[in-house]
Amino acid sequence: MNTCEILYWTIGIIHSEHTIEENTPIQPVYAKGCKGYVELCPEFVEGLSDLSGFSHIYLIYHFHQVRSVQLLVKPYLQDEGHGIFATHAPCRPNPIGLSVVELLGIEGNTLHLDDVDILDGTPLLDIKPCTAKFDLHDIKKNGWQDEVDEETAQQRGKRKYHQ
Amino acid sequence: MNTCEILYWTIGIIHSEHTIEENTPIQPVYAKGCKGYVELCPEFVEGLSDLSGFSHIYLIYHFHQVRSVQLLVKPYLQDEGHGIFATHAPCRPNPIGLSVVELLGIEGNTLHLDDVDILDGTPLLDIKPCTAKFDLHDIKKNGWQDEVDEETAQQRGKRKYHQ
Repeated sequence: MNTCEILYWTIGIIHSEHTIEENTPIQPVYAKGCKGYVELCPEFVEGLSDLSGFSHIYLIYHFHQVRSVQLLVKPYLQDEGHGIFATHAPCRPNPIGLSVVELLGIEGNTLHLDDVDILDGTPLLDIKPCTAKFDLHDIKKNGWQDEVDEETAQQRGKRKYHQ
Repeated sequence: MNTCEILYWTIGIIHSEHTIEENTPIQPVYAKGCKGYVELCPEFVEGLSDLSGFSHIYLIYHFHQVRSVQLLVKPYLQDEGHGIFATHAPCRPNPIGLSVVELLGIEGNTLHLDDVDILDGTPLLDIKPCTAKFDLHDIKKNGWQDEVDEETAQQRGKRKYHQ
């Protein structure tokens, strides 16, 4: 199996109130009320047509602050080590981030968002709708996350945000 | 706003029974029973540690057959045109695919999967767990998808698969 290069381009920038990495919530579920916006490159505005009808969207983005890859990590929610692919930690072989955020509205090339768990200035790669038809999965097993009680998850998941 | 290049590497290959594009279901929800597997590059196997505890995983991959970008498209489910970011069509500015598949088991560098809606031979970019804590969203609006009844969606979503 040969590995090969894949080249993408940033299509916009994600802006948020999170300017310090350790104060940034780790997931949208721990970022309720954290507003932000996407500034899309103007040449792609036509691609936003009809997107405002969706309440939730996927943002796929580049973890631009990551400098090294770790295959074993301790996730923010737990002090145990796990394989990087069993976590959402940023130090992945390809540092790709994925968040489902709430879409509040669109003005021109600006998408207004809630539940933003993304560092200010993050380069955006793609936007997709998140929908009841496609994205409600019958999740049966949650691996190591089932060992983390909800109160601990809420506290650790928010990191230093709101302190 | 400056656009800039982002360089990734394939970390594995997705194998499936779907060898013809127009016979490939458009989403995992229309690919129930479609088995497949990921062949991960052996150097990343350590990163799979504890992943087998999760029933569902995100695969992020490269639509390697896409040759052009379209900002307005007719999605498979409907004959109306919509902005590319309001659909999951492959001809995106960055041709990045996203599927939540069921993880049946892991042997070495092979991940056995169900609900695979991905063309055989597709280059893999990332794997993340899909979990009850992070990924059950309170989706309120489904845009144009609400205009498509479930029977039509099932028929069109499977495309020519199972005919």
